[in-house]
Amino acid sequence: MNPKAFQDNYPDALSHCYGCGRLNEHGHQLKSYWDGAETIAHFTPQPYHTAIPGYVYGGLIASLIDCHATGTASAAAARAAGLEMSDGQAQRFVTAALKVDFLKPTPIGVTLELRGKISELKDRKVVVEVTLYANGVACARGEVVCVRMPEEMLG
Amino acid sequence: MNPKAFQDNYPDALSHCYGCGRLNEHGHQLKSYWDGAETIAHFTPQPYHTAIPGYVYGGLIASLIDCHATGTASAAAARAAGLEMSDGQAQRFVTAALKVDFLKPTPIGVTLELRGKISELKDRKVVVEVTLYANGVACARGEVVCVRMPEEMLG
Repeated sequence: MNPKAFQDNYPDALSHCYGCGRLNEHGHQLKSYWDGAETIAHFTPQPYHTAIPGYVYGGLIASLIDCHATGTASAAAARAAGLEMSDGQAQRFVTAALKVDFLKPTPIGVTLELRGKISELKDRKVVVEVTLYANGVACARGEVVCVRMPEEMLG
Repeated sequence: MNPKAFQDNYPDALSHCYGCGRLNEHGHQLKSYWDGAETIAHFTPQPYHTAIPGYVYGGLIASLIDCHATGTASAAAARAAGLEMSDGQAQRFVTAALKVDFLKPTPIGVTLELRGKISELKDRKVVVEVTLYANGVACARGEVVCVRMPEEMLG
């Protein structure tokens, strides 16, 4: 059904992100997919990704929202251009601004679901709203301003 | 000079945060201190805390800003109450909202400095502005709304 996650289409040189790079063996390797006009990802925190015991660390929540959003931006840009995301062709977006509202404490020990909606789509800028659910309950909501990666970042 | 970091005054039961808990052996163990009316922390990312190669992962930046802010909130609340933060007495704050503007790509391989300023201080709510510097250059700026930890979070 979902042959490849958005992030698995990033070129090798851009696949080392701690949050979602398939080549970062230490990282979270978040994987995001289309689900109709929305995007979806799942992640199960480790027991040590804790804030107050019993709850997920907010920094991890922010990280997951961030990487799901930049992946969504990349996929949305490809779709808007009439392209398939295919090996090495995905345009990489980076985060200009991240805002997260923590609605409720997020319980640890369950798989979290992230759902993304594209709220603004321009050539160089995509704004994505991400809601994070635990047990079907919205626990955090983020807005991420993603911008096309500046060429000079590749050095 | 700085006898103990803010976070090292948290009670044991609240010292498991992945970002700053002294008892979380897997985590970042961020340590924040007063520097006059501001607060300061330093952190050196690991080589694998990367986003695009050469730059620090935004999720880590958000995490450091978050934990420096909640630590600052705890210290500010103690100071406002005329108390010293001492073993087990620190009031714990949690994050209600986190906003980070990524001003420039943050280079990896150097020690980052975080500086916090308290912009609002009420009994149950403290707002902290945090700027993250690399090589003396401001690379990210955050605003964190911290609220006193709800009792029910302790279960």
